[in-house]
Amino acid sequence: MSQTRKNLIVGQSGGPTAAINSSLYGVVKEGLRQKEKIAHVYGMVNGIEGFLNGTVLDFEEALPGEELEYLKTTPGAYLGSCRYKLPEDLEDAVYPKLFQKFEELEIGYFFYIGGNDSMDTVSKLSRYAKKVGSDIRVIGEPKTIDNDLVLTDHTPGFGSAAKYVATTVREIVLDANVYEKKSVTIIEIMGRHAGWLTAASVLARKSVGDNPLLIYLPETAFDEEAFLKKVEACFEKNLNVVVCVSEGIHDKDGVFICEYDNAVGTDTFGHKMLAGCGKYLENLVRNRLGVKARSVELNVSQRCSSSMMSKTDQKEAVSAGEFGVRLALKGETGKMVSYIRISNLPYAMKLGLEDVNEICNKEKTVPLSWITNEGSDIGEEFIFYALPLVQGQVEVPVGTDGLAKFVSRK
Amino acid sequence: MSQTRKNLIVGQSGGPTAAINSSLYGVVKEGLRQKEKIAHVYGMVNGIEGFLNGTVLDFEEALPGEELEYLKTTPGAYLGSCRYKLPEDLEDAVYPKLFQKFEELEIGYFFYIGGNDSMDTVSKLSRYAKKVGSDIRVIGEPKTIDNDLVLTDHTPGFGSAAKYVATTVREIVLDANVYEKKSVTIIEIMGRHAGWLTAASVLARKSVGDNPLLIYLPETAFDEEAFLKKVEACFEKNLNVVVCVSEGIHDKDGVFICEYDNAVGTDTFGHKMLAGCGKYLENLVRNRLGVKARSVELNVSQRCSSSMMSKTDQKEAVSAGEFGVRLALKGETGKMVSYIRISNLPYAMKLGLEDVNEICNKEKTVPLSWITNEGSDIGEEFIFYALPLVQGQVEVPVGTDGLAKFVSRK
Repeated sequence: MSQTRKNLIVGQSGGPTAAINSSLYGVVKEGLRQKEKIAHVYGMVNGIEGFLNGTVLDFEEALPGEELEYLKTTPGAYLGSCRYKLPEDLEDAVYPKLFQKFEELEIGYFFYIGGNDSMDTVSKLSRYAKKVGSDIRVIGEPKTIDNDLVLTDHTPGFGSAAKYVATTVREIVLDANVYEKKSVTIIEIMGRHAGWLTAASVLARKSVGDNPLLIYLPETAFDEEAFLKKVEACFEKNLNVVVCVSEGIHDKDGVFICEYDNAVGTDTFGHKMLAGCGKYLENLVRNRLGVKARSVELNVSQRCSSSMMSKTDQKEAVSAGEFGVRLALKGETGKMVSYIRISNLPYAMKLGLEDVNEICNKEKTVPLSWITNEGSDIGEEFIFYALPLVQGQVEVPVGTDGLAKFVSRK
Repeated sequence: MSQTRKNLIVGQSGGPTAAINSSLYGVVKEGLRQKEKIAHVYGMVNGIEGFLNGTVLDFEEALPGEELEYLKTTPGAYLGSCRYKLPEDLEDAVYPKLFQKFEELEIGYFFYIGGNDSMDTVSKLSRYAKKVGSDIRVIGEPKTIDNDLVLTDHTPGFGSAAKYVATTVREIVLDANVYEKKSVTIIEIMGRHAGWLTAASVLARKSVGDNPLLIYLPETAFDEEAFLKKVEACFEKNLNVVVCVSEGIHDKDGVFICEYDNAVGTDTFGHKMLAGCGKYLENLVRNRLGVKARSVELNVSQRCSSSMMSKTDQKEAVSAGEFGVRLALKGETGKMVSYIRISNLPYAMKLGLEDVNEICNKEKTVPLSWITNEGSDIGEEFIFYALPLVQGQVEVPVGTDGLAKFVSRK
């Protein structure tokens, strides 16, 4: 064994996804493989915030042997997460404090799995390392169901979330079709600023003219009157109309539909009670069109459903984790692992590295040219883009109770 | 071929489930097998209401060959449904109208798949048949995620819905655990009067003391102040508290929590906007306890998720369908197919027939002795009862798009 063996530490940050633990698995697995260069693979509990409080685990103790395998099918963030932004000022006292802790733990490789806020952490730590001449290598592993990171074809977590949305919408369409009575079902899907996940509802459509008949993203302005006209037009050919909307749809003045005054009540304490835009539109449709209406908020299952994991997403997330470790060992730092699409048919992808400073705090939205029908539908470009990402079923191991077996920290 | 060959007709009624098409598959498959006694297997589209309007399909044309197999993994009601109650008065003109249609179609066997309202239809049709001396045999096939039918150990559809609830709650618990900050997650589960499905959330618990920490059914009265005290007590040992509630929880005066005045807003039209009890409790917890709170309504996926189907539920539903046909051919009528549990370890069940008049318009609720901790938890009796029903994974066939392939009427 050489004297230069260092330790690796990895953390998770931001909202969890179905694949964030697959990325973690990739980092840990490759870290453990590289015995000649890496002595210990540590995890920081609750991200950089938890690390500052001193909570660290050793993966060989926490998930020995086969236990580690369960990470790949466990949703949520195994290590816990945080929403902590490092100070802009690299002179802040938190940096030397962090780097002293790194030194105490003999950290040579720092991995952070997260979205654009987390890449901000990667950027700052790598810049600070350069500033003080530390040789710690800092690598970001992308993660977000929102698919809104720039400089990568897509993000780990998006394929599984998209598969959940596509399949669940397809099921809800079946559910909506059972009665022979005019009805509107509004499905509210996650995505405040970027509509990628809502766009995935188009994959639920089995053929042209099939539900969901209308799809609205936050990339374009939402107009109530135009929407009601579209719904009425749908009724000419369909009894049951299913509409998918992003939680973040807003009008031309930028006001979120879920914030429209009439959509909320007031509780005993005089506090506003926010209903989602789905609930608002349900009421709008019922009142204005006089038809049966209901709304369904897909909610957190979009990011934590194990049964709807995409095999493609899972495999890519693992590879991205492994790749990051190998490249860090080659000396890379201040980079985020990225996905580069080589071809669409057959689908082929390779991994790359991008300057994390070009990624953090930026947001990639759905191209306007992919949004059709005056902002009420999604074009074929998106289908070609997204369909490869939802392919493949993952078998979730079951425990002695016959239900999905997940791992969690002791 | 004998002159006595008659036709079979089957319909679906009430809310759909993940297994209602498995029951349908069983009836159709067995009907098609009995070529010597049954000439055609028809389906009534949109239940008895649609049948009155003359919409009937022939299964050999609608789902030829292998197409029929997809029924078993297709959620929703393939034949469509209705919520139509036949008149109490058997002298009503609708009865001779119906029976004339049966005669025109040479129907000898009438099958209706549904809950207690649908069993009311079976009861009335069988009583009318007896009254007019018709030899049509009328059989009910149970169906409901609510599990509230009497004289049967459980109902087709419940096992799959229970599995969805147990697995999804387990996933949401992981999602709730990621931040190191006090939080309450309220999960609202279907069930207006019977809490069977909400009780299934106890299966999500991996060990004693694990989330969901509190479970409330509509079988007992809900008290806000006692609830808030329980939540506070949970915080002594847990940072993240997950609470599962039936949509139908109510106070000691029978007022539904979701109808508490403060839980609703008013829309532009002055109409009440109902938020669920989950939303109400979320706000209550946030305001009274000053902690982070969110609510998740599991919504229609509880009854239409194909990926969470229980193999046990699916197999039993198919068997119940087949069994009903064989017994109708033996002369049975005015009966509902029932499940009789023979043993729990190992789980064994046999099929029976019960007088439908003893079943319709009744409701089976969770025994009060199975509800523990002053109405805030579920005892082991329920776990022993429910665990066998959620066992086994079902592989859902995928189509050319790589997503779940379902069948629907042309």
